[in-house]
Amino acid sequence: MFEKKENAPANPNVPSLRFPTRALSNVKYDAKVGYFELGRGQTARALSVNTVKSFAQTLRLMAISKEMVENNDFATKREAYYVSKNWGECKFNEQVESDTVMDDIEALASLEGLSREQLRYYPEEHGGSVAGSLVVIDADAETGKPLEIDCTGFGSGSYSIPHSVEHLGFKTDAKFILAIETGGMFQRLNNHKFWRSFNCILIETAGVPTRATRRFIRKLSDDCKLAVYAFNDCDPYGISNIYRTLKVGSGNAAHINRFFCVPQASFLGVTPQDITEYKLPTHPLKDVDVKRAKDALKNDPFFKIHKRWAAAMEQLVKMGVRAEQQALARWGLNYVIDEYLPRKLKAVDAFLP
Amino acid sequence: MFEKKENAPANPNVPSLRFPTRALSNVKYDAKVGYFELGRGQTARALSVNTVKSFAQTLRLMAISKEMVENNDFATKREAYYVSKNWGECKFNEQVESDTVMDDIEALASLEGLSREQLRYYPEEHGGSVAGSLVVIDADAETGKPLEIDCTGFGSGSYSIPHSVEHLGFKTDAKFILAIETGGMFQRLNNHKFWRSFNCILIETAGVPTRATRRFIRKLSDDCKLAVYAFNDCDPYGISNIYRTLKVGSGNAAHINRFFCVPQASFLGVTPQDITEYKLPTHPLKDVDVKRAKDALKNDPFFKIHKRWAAAMEQLVKMGVRAEQQALARWGLNYVIDEYLPRKLKAVDAFLP
Repeated sequence: MFEKKENAPANPNVPSLRFPTRALSNVKYDAKVGYFELGRGQTARALSVNTVKSFAQTLRLMAISKEMVENNDFATKREAYYVSKNWGECKFNEQVESDTVMDDIEALASLEGLSREQLRYYPEEHGGSVAGSLVVIDADAETGKPLEIDCTGFGSGSYSIPHSVEHLGFKTDAKFILAIETGGMFQRLNNHKFWRSFNCILIETAGVPTRATRRFIRKLSDDCKLAVYAFNDCDPYGISNIYRTLKVGSGNAAHINRFFCVPQASFLGVTPQDITEYKLPTHPLKDVDVKRAKDALKNDPFFKIHKRWAAAMEQLVKMGVRAEQQALARWGLNYVIDEYLPRKLKAVDAFLP
Repeated sequence: MFEKKENAPANPNVPSLRFPTRALSNVKYDAKVGYFELGRGQTARALSVNTVKSFAQTLRLMAISKEMVENNDFATKREAYYVSKNWGECKFNEQVESDTVMDDIEALASLEGLSREQLRYYPEEHGGSVAGSLVVIDADAETGKPLEIDCTGFGSGSYSIPHSVEHLGFKTDAKFILAIETGGMFQRLNNHKFWRSFNCILIETAGVPTRATRRFIRKLSDDCKLAVYAFNDCDPYGISNIYRTLKVGSGNAAHINRFFCVPQASFLGVTPQDITEYKLPTHPLKDVDVKRAKDALKNDPFFKIHKRWAAAMEQLVKMGVRAEQQALARWGLNYVIDEYLPRKLKAVDAFLP
């Protein structure tokens, strides 16, 4: 769709836009920050007869962003696509077109430390649920007055993270964030007020955490200097997708990792070692699980950087099984609260990185 | 797994359990209540050498339920399966076995007006998000003290419905519940405080509403005499699955419909008529959409009972297109708030049933 020229010199006679290159060849793992980042490569898009449409679309999306910031409004990526239907010949025919332009704008803004959400383009999905020792500080959309939301006060319910969290502030004396994979486990820990006995904040990620959930965890952890512990199922998908994405982000989306991954996270469990130690009921690994694990061990820099993770994944493949966090119920419904978590939390330095 | 004898006479010399028959042949659409209900057919399970294991499993699951009620605890269906791993020879080998027993227990309890959640077996998934003119009354899990949760106080965030809602109470002066299919639309209406200008309660269903969401809507509507309007995408799946399940439940799960469907719901939009009237951008129906629509028209009693729905679905198939609720953004991001919803809400009697 665009005329792409990597590192092309700007021609001063032709209007052009310059974006960071999003191709994998321009992505580097940065050990200092602990995640995959865009390199310095740039893509120039010169205005020509062939590019006039996409050039105009880019400027239009940027103009809408400006308008939305002024009016304190927002649009989902889907809505942005539909809004273009009134642009005459300049309209997007498919959402994949508007998404590509949006990703470039997002990459550009990220260099200035601005997330897409700050440009007021929101994800379709909101964040997970939160309960525990935390006051979220939001602002009334009309008056701008601060609004305190006490996450200890929702009984069996919880606080649902909004689609964008950049404007939120936090007050807490909690010691850590526990990011929990399943809704059932979150409800158990919430109903038994685990967050009070262990002075922590519970966040349900519901499988792979959404953008909003990841950003919320990252911002909360950064702002309040909180450790982040992940409590997931033990299987190749849970490790190489759910946890890895939370911790270091992905190469394909390097332009957002700066905001959306949580390099300070560590892995409480369930570990392959736990399966043996706690004699957990298991299910056999499927062929697709084994393939995923082997692919990850061979190709994913995450496992090259973190030798302990490589060893753990190899151990899991050798064991040929997987286990869910609910499997701890084998020893009683609240064994997880009375035994497993307290024992684990006595040795956080031993957590997988 | 069970020796099933429909309507078998009880043999007084052999211990037996009697459950409502869950087969489709025993399901009737009850026009008075407005949904599919179990008929009076019963299945007897006599204790014999062949059934001793499942007989024992059934009694064990019932005994755990009693314990959980006494201890104010709960288990997800998944946890219940794992708990059985300590039952020796009596353990479940697959979750499908424990689910079958659980469904029968649920059907039995439903005849007494008790939901599975009241037996303390919770679904894995929590409910959707809530914002607006509503105070939810929960109770502190330890002290039992009432706890008031004001759903106008969550800023850009919202209240996340717990896994079980039977114990909740409500205070509201709202006029209706708006059940919204997509998270993006929910966030728009919440950020612009649509719930205040129209004195209503917004509930995000996020596609097919979970058990907890459906029960929450039903209970809130019953307790506070509130109308329920659904605001969905316009496509065969949205109509014949998402909306239909909300309104009348399903034949396959007739034993839960009494609690989990909302016969008082009506359909605000997007209707096939809206697509024409509001000149919405559309996508062509796929073959699978057309097949789904034709199957529903031919076989689903919902469309036989509601002629207006049959006509609307036929119109959609004839048009050959589908439209999303976000498509209204074609006329501006907040057209839905400024024009579409106010116009629609002036003629609620015209809503599809």
